[in-house]
Amino acid sequence: MTIGIVGAGQLGRMMALAGYPLGLDFLFLDRAGNSPGGQVAPILCGELDDPRLLATLARRSDVVTVDWENVSVAALRRLGPPGTVAPPLRALAVAQDRLAEKRLFARLGIPSTRHAAVDSRRALERAVRTIGLPGVLKTRRFGYDGKGQYVLRSADDLGSAWTQLGGAPLLYEEHVPFDFEVSIIGARSSRGEIVSYPLNANLHRGGILRLTRAPAGSPRLQRTARVFLEKVLGHFRYVGVLTIEFFVRRGQLIANEIAPRVHNSGHWTLEGAETSQFENHLRAILGLPLGSTRPRGHAAMINLIGRMPPRERFLAEPGVHWHDYGKEARPERKLGHCTIVEASAAARDRRARRLLLAIDPQTRIMGR
Amino acid sequence: MTIGIVGAGQLGRMMALAGYPLGLDFLFLDRAGNSPGGQVAPILCGELDDPRLLATLARRSDVVTVDWENVSVAALRRLGPPGTVAPPLRALAVAQDRLAEKRLFARLGIPSTRHAAVDSRRALERAVRTIGLPGVLKTRRFGYDGKGQYVLRSADDLGSAWTQLGGAPLLYEEHVPFDFEVSIIGARSSRGEIVSYPLNANLHRGGILRLTRAPAGSPRLQRTARVFLEKVLGHFRYVGVLTIEFFVRRGQLIANEIAPRVHNSGHWTLEGAETSQFENHLRAILGLPLGSTRPRGHAAMINLIGRMPPRERFLAEPGVHWHDYGKEARPERKLGHCTIVEASAAARDRRARRLLLAIDPQTRIMGR
Repeated sequence: MTIGIVGAGQLGRMMALAGYPLGLDFLFLDRAGNSPGGQVAPILCGELDDPRLLATLARRSDVVTVDWENVSVAALRRLGPPGTVAPPLRALAVAQDRLAEKRLFARLGIPSTRHAAVDSRRALERAVRTIGLPGVLKTRRFGYDGKGQYVLRSADDLGSAWTQLGGAPLLYEEHVPFDFEVSIIGARSSRGEIVSYPLNANLHRGGILRLTRAPAGSPRLQRTARVFLEKVLGHFRYVGVLTIEFFVRRGQLIANEIAPRVHNSGHWTLEGAETSQFENHLRAILGLPLGSTRPRGHAAMINLIGRMPPRERFLAEPGVHWHDYGKEARPERKLGHCTIVEASAAARDRRARRLLLAIDPQTRIMGR
Repeated sequence: MTIGIVGAGQLGRMMALAGYPLGLDFLFLDRAGNSPGGQVAPILCGELDDPRLLATLARRSDVVTVDWENVSVAALRRLGPPGTVAPPLRALAVAQDRLAEKRLFARLGIPSTRHAAVDSRRALERAVRTIGLPGVLKTRRFGYDGKGQYVLRSADDLGSAWTQLGGAPLLYEEHVPFDFEVSIIGARSSRGEIVSYPLNANLHRGGILRLTRAPAGSPRLQRTARVFLEKVLGHFRYVGVLTIEFFVRRGQLIANEIAPRVHNSGHWTLEGAETSQFENHLRAILGLPLGSTRPRGHAAMINLIGRMPPRERFLAEPGVHWHDYGKEARPERKLGHCTIVEASAAARDRRARRLLLAIDPQTRIMGR
């Protein structure tokens, strides 16, 4: 049985590595043959929306899935009857548009940020008047890792924000002075079974995830996040793994965005949970029973960004798990991650702090 | 950095899957392109002792290692200076010859079975007189999974044993009425660091390993096995993972054989230990720090032999980890394994018994 994956980044790579033990084969489609996925499985080289290559991928696969949420929904739609592609295209389409995402949250009764669509300079002024400052102007489409965002702190920022982002469809959003950020990751199988992982506490810097700790959050927060997750999964009759990111403010969840895929904040599940998010995504799209999401302890995941730190030094740390994505170094690029799993949250946090400082002596994440 | 692997069976496959996260690439040499390893990494197709292909493998790899201990030592010797190939060829040569193995045990003061070399019918008669009955006549070379063995229970068996095995260099060995079987797996890195895993308790049927449980054995047994392991590793200035199989009789270890490689009885380490035997083999041959061998709980590994049981049914069991080697079904062939890790030995044994019965209702292993 072959799984076709559109995009061959680190998510696809880890999916393939998780799927081989299940007896699955993989075929990627990506621009670069030497992409992270292409190093561990056969690959078709070309544009991700190339109709001929997508058709070849679909013909040679039993199910097609994605490594990246911004693939062309129109191109995927031509691949065949529903069920050929997972996740559902409706979910991909919503996740690709921040405004559609906000409308979904509203429709499902999931608290989110106040926001307004912005398609002109005048609309931006109106939005800032209504929603207030500070706020964030974001492109509605193709934002990731903090790209396509501009934080407005005063009325003086309107001009440069508009110069930088104006032209594309935009969204102006209140700036939430959150206490911390969490995400919930869950899977729904094609047979309707749902599982979810414990909440992840996420720390970003420069718009990029640096550190995830799990399990995190109170049982009440966990229960609420699970309810919201089930609403989204049910709404789409979703198939596969899906992630919702939240701000937490005064103990309340405020939905930020959804990712219709395995997620960076779930990489800890490779060692820290009984079944990884990657394996559960594959089980879900194949209609297999979903695996236990029980945590094996208290996990921390640290992203390795820009350049890989010396592998040898980190492997000398007992229980550090190393994940090199096989990518070329480039500033701010996610090249790998490492994970630890400890018996207590306190021990986990002590080690995470020490490892973070070793990787990035300038970091202020978690303090010194 | 590329690891060349001679042989592309399930051991090589699991090595590659464990090594990708370390940022390694792999290249196999095997007869069949669609072998377990060839499904997850590039492969050179041909005979394992083909000098031209071995030279290509060595040229395109940083280190060459093996998936099978019976590769031609003479062919590997031509590959280049020591250090190019791990494990050391002297260790491979000894593991390929049961008599050399027995002599090594004697030399290192490791208790083993009484035995005699048998090169003629008359030598067999002499050996049976000296060592007694019952006993086992074995080929000195190329035995695996109980193949190349004949159990002699009475003097009447001499003729048929000789008819079946005579011609090849043989060994006659006392039959040990053991209480149970254990193995110890450890690694020595090219920098001299040594780690070992907890003892494995192994159950065979028809000469094939069916079930491994770990950790097993008393602390005293564990300590003694570790001492013996260190003797063997030190003797060869070994590099990589090595396994020693023992009979246990009246609380004493009796060495049966060594395997200069990762071992079927260590497959549980993929989920059941902090670092798997596969990752530690790679760390060892690359001179990287060895990983923690701490067990994550009480693990059982059940081999899937002859035909794969229905995957769906087993994945529905919480915490069952599935490993399909991608091989064609054939009677008595190892096609995969599954693992469970439980919080207590009792819980582990209950589940292992239930899973064994589901896989093979005829099994008498562990009783009913």
